[in-house]
Amino acid sequence: MSPPAALDVNLVGVTDTSAVPIPEPLAVNGVSAWRQKTAKVPTGIAAASNSDMFKSPICYTKPKAKQFEHRFSLEAKSRKASTLKGAARYLKNPGLISLGGGLPSPEYFPIEHLDIKVPTVPGFSPEATRESGTVLHAGKHDIQEGTSTYDLEIALNYGQATGAAPLLRFVTEHTEIIHSPPYSDWQCTLTAGSTYAWDTALRVFCERGDYILMEEYTFASAAETAFPLGIKAVGIPMDEQGLIPEGMDEILSNWDVAARGARKPYVLYTIPTGQNPTGATQSAERRQAVYKVAQKHDLIIVEDEPYYFLQMQPYTSGDASPVPPPSTHEEFIKSLVPSFLSMDTDGRVVRLESFSKVISPGSRVGWIVASEEIIERFTRTFEVSSQNPSGISQLALFKLLDEHWGHAGYLDWLINLRMSYTARRDSLVHACERHLPREIVHWEAPAAGMFHWMEIDWHKHPGVAAGKTHAAIEEEIFLSAVNEGVLVSRGSWFKPDHDIAEKKMFFRATFAAASSEKIDEAISRFAGSLRAQFGL
Amino acid sequence: MSPPAALDVNLVGVTDTSAVPIPEPLAVNGVSAWRQKTAKVPTGIAAASNSDMFKSPICYTKPKAKQFEHRFSLEAKSRKASTLKGAARYLKNPGLISLGGGLPSPEYFPIEHLDIKVPTVPGFSPEATRESGTVLHAGKHDIQEGTSTYDLEIALNYGQATGAAPLLRFVTEHTEIIHSPPYSDWQCTLTAGSTYAWDTALRVFCERGDYILMEEYTFASAAETAFPLGIKAVGIPMDEQGLIPEGMDEILSNWDVAARGARKPYVLYTIPTGQNPTGATQSAERRQAVYKVAQKHDLIIVEDEPYYFLQMQPYTSGDASPVPPPSTHEEFIKSLVPSFLSMDTDGRVVRLESFSKVISPGSRVGWIVASEEIIERFTRTFEVSSQNPSGISQLALFKLLDEHWGHAGYLDWLINLRMSYTARRDSLVHACERHLPREIVHWEAPAAGMFHWMEIDWHKHPGVAAGKTHAAIEEEIFLSAVNEGVLVSRGSWFKPDHDIAEKKMFFRATFAAASSEKIDEAISRFAGSLRAQFGL
Repeated sequence: MSPPAALDVNLVGVTDTSAVPIPEPLAVNGVSAWRQKTAKVPTGIAAASNSDMFKSPICYTKPKAKQFEHRFSLEAKSRKASTLKGAARYLKNPGLISLGGGLPSPEYFPIEHLDIKVPTVPGFSPEATRESGTVLHAGKHDIQEGTSTYDLEIALNYGQATGAAPLLRFVTEHTEIIHSPPYSDWQCTLTAGSTYAWDTALRVFCERGDYILMEEYTFASAAETAFPLGIKAVGIPMDEQGLIPEGMDEILSNWDVAARGARKPYVLYTIPTGQNPTGATQSAERRQAVYKVAQKHDLIIVEDEPYYFLQMQPYTSGDASPVPPPSTHEEFIKSLVPSFLSMDTDGRVVRLESFSKVISPGSRVGWIVASEEIIERFTRTFEVSSQNPSGISQLALFKLLDEHWGHAGYLDWLINLRMSYTARRDSLVHACERHLPREIVHWEAPAAGMFHWMEIDWHKHPGVAAGKTHAAIEEEIFLSAVNEGVLVSRGSWFKPDHDIAEKKMFFRATFAAASSEKIDEAISRFAGSLRAQFGL
Repeated sequence: MSPPAALDVNLVGVTDTSAVPIPEPLAVNGVSAWRQKTAKVPTGIAAASNSDMFKSPICYTKPKAKQFEHRFSLEAKSRKASTLKGAARYLKNPGLISLGGGLPSPEYFPIEHLDIKVPTVPGFSPEATRESGTVLHAGKHDIQEGTSTYDLEIALNYGQATGAAPLLRFVTEHTEIIHSPPYSDWQCTLTAGSTYAWDTALRVFCERGDYILMEEYTFASAAETAFPLGIKAVGIPMDEQGLIPEGMDEILSNWDVAARGARKPYVLYTIPTGQNPTGATQSAERRQAVYKVAQKHDLIIVEDEPYYFLQMQPYTSGDASPVPPPSTHEEFIKSLVPSFLSMDTDGRVVRLESFSKVISPGSRVGWIVASEEIIERFTRTFEVSSQNPSGISQLALFKLLDEHWGHAGYLDWLINLRMSYTARRDSLVHACERHLPREIVHWEAPAAGMFHWMEIDWHKHPGVAAGKTHAAIEEEIFLSAVNEGVLVSRGSWFKPDHDIAEKKMFFRATFAAASSEKIDEAISRFAGSLRAQFGL
């Protein structure tokens, strides 16, 4: 893929930029001007597009990604471009009548228009939206009528695996504004959700019998996606900042192929921000150290980042006044911990992006960012599997994010969400401070995400003297809490590596769903059940 | 899974029905009464449901499906229920506060309502819809407000792999009305489209190195889904009714494990109705014969049926008057060729259903029907891959199909579609009759689907005398047509089994997309290019 025609060609491929002016980084308020310089966004049925159509000139001042073909699975290496999609190149011939592809005629799509009522910036609450929200209208023929670049005629038909061009443009620009990847040939593709993207990543990179690297506690479903493919997980030790790079290096440096019965792992799955279940967030320095270990052992890093925009304001205890929100978009963006993508000079990072925690999980639309070589293997897989995310979902997201909010409005929404989650997190931690017996429960206020991780000093449990196992005591505490009317998650559920015995004991609570009154009541019940269990 | 509580328990599990009254088969006009007798449709966030909640009593008078665990892949056998979803059972405890699952709170979903404008029966055309269509309204809290069983609060959140209960109910009832499977424990699950369902079927049933059975010409993408998984295809000979059962029996009976380097195939992928690319439709007798061979060799039949409701009226040549539409729903249903599912006494059929050709491919919502044992393996896969189809798509389909049209209106829509496709097919075949040189082109008018299959007597091509290959001549004819301004598809693109040399030569044309004037012009161009190529 090549940069768009409108691009200043003097800059393409130039890596020594001392003699030429360096283009400005793309910022929120530069998008509109840049769009006017580029070619028009493709609008046809199943129109092909790629991020190079939308990336700004500064991207092409950077070196290209390294090649990672040696990391592809046999399955990924075997994938070829679709035979039938190949015929589409003839459709460009002027005057040609196609009796080729079996696409239904839009007259048989029984939806003439779709309207959604959404928040008007800055009135983001449901109440404000009901009172003063904006109704966005998508008709069947808006493109023909010149009122939009995406409409129902296109959204209801077959699409490209990379997604609809107008939404791909938005996520490409968003990626550049937030992460500014340090190599030139990065690409985005939309996905049918990041659970599906992770399943695909395993198919792209791994073979049956392989190990992958995961945090010692991780999202249980991510591990359960891998196991049936014959892939095992090795758990990397963690601290309050998440995975410990030295621990990973040690595992990899001492990997014993014969003892493990498997080659050295080369895929790291990590949730760097607001990790599930521990709530840990890797600092910038921690990420740099992890990246160095990844370079040393030539790893692919899959960074699963649903909670990236649930980075909260600093925690303040009950008496202190809360920290005010970022006052500008620049301040907000600067406050975000840098992603692995933003430090990925090699192109070894696959970033899984999700709208699930910031817009709606039900849309089943996400996207991934990686080098062109890697994205191409993912889209080849999508073409004969998910095909593309729902066109109806894509249309709703495009109307909301691009046509209505724009990048500025979306960042306002994310700042608003940050403040809401900060308040929720504070409610939960305050409740813990009020109710939990500190002699047996320890925690850190999480800096991001949805989860609060509580360590229980289980050695003080009377069951230990009676010879009960870690698992039995964990179960007893869990069931006792359920009996008291509160459901928390058991730490052991999140252990991907069952070969390691658990020395510590944890429970996970979320502050995402319940109201602050319910959270207080729930933690009070949990405290009561712990006191009874431990005889306090 | 067990039948719903409201079911007449006297009939459950009874296979000798001589002494008890046999329940009525479910018909369109019986749905409403039956719904009132059953338990309410589940409406909570990610509420679990299954087809047994919605099937009518007659289903339980039938014997159970056979077990097919011996056909599952290692991957499928390894799949376990999700750890985190397992915790959901405690949510039923009255008064329990959950700090368990990380589901976002609906107040952060920025869509307050969604409206779609759709056809009012019987005004199905886009013009009629614009003038007198109905606007369907989905709010965020319709369930709480008692105005619907499905709303945005639920659709925008995480869901179950089987899909939202209200839409699962509709497709279950539809399946029973149309196919009435002859065993009791069949189930439906929604899918993120049938391309994805087929990819999953390969993962559920096949191992690397296996062969699968396909028609000798088949949907190219279906074969290309299999190849990168290390699965090869053996092509079954076809005639004007599609695959020849004796041909399949011969291949299986003479399978030489050593010569093939693979065990005997046990998965048949077939498009029984309006086959892509040949347009062939298997008659009821043909299907019975195929099913017998499947029983003999213990095959799984994957019937991919996107064109089932594109069965058209009998073809009439240009002079004769067209056959009038079916006058009742019963007549329409009776006119449909019976599916493999409807004759599947063993439970060896996996039926892939799609809305792509009858509502919209962009919805990326389909469903599958199979035995409970098989469906369970599919849903375990979905849970850690697609999760569920887009909630926004599901909500739009539910509003249209269930709340607005109902089963009767949907059948009216399908009858209307049948008449439209009949007219399109007739246009194309009439154009062929008018323009094509019969001395070198042969065809049958297709009875279903979107495709017209034309055999070219390539031995009469002057290139043969000049020593050109089949492939070279096919390419020459194809490119000559493109130069004349018409795109048709080359038959060789659809050959899944590259070990067999092609004796015949075919081109495929679709009548789905272009207008009848364009179709006539396109066929006239194709005729001109053929005459020039063959020197006629």
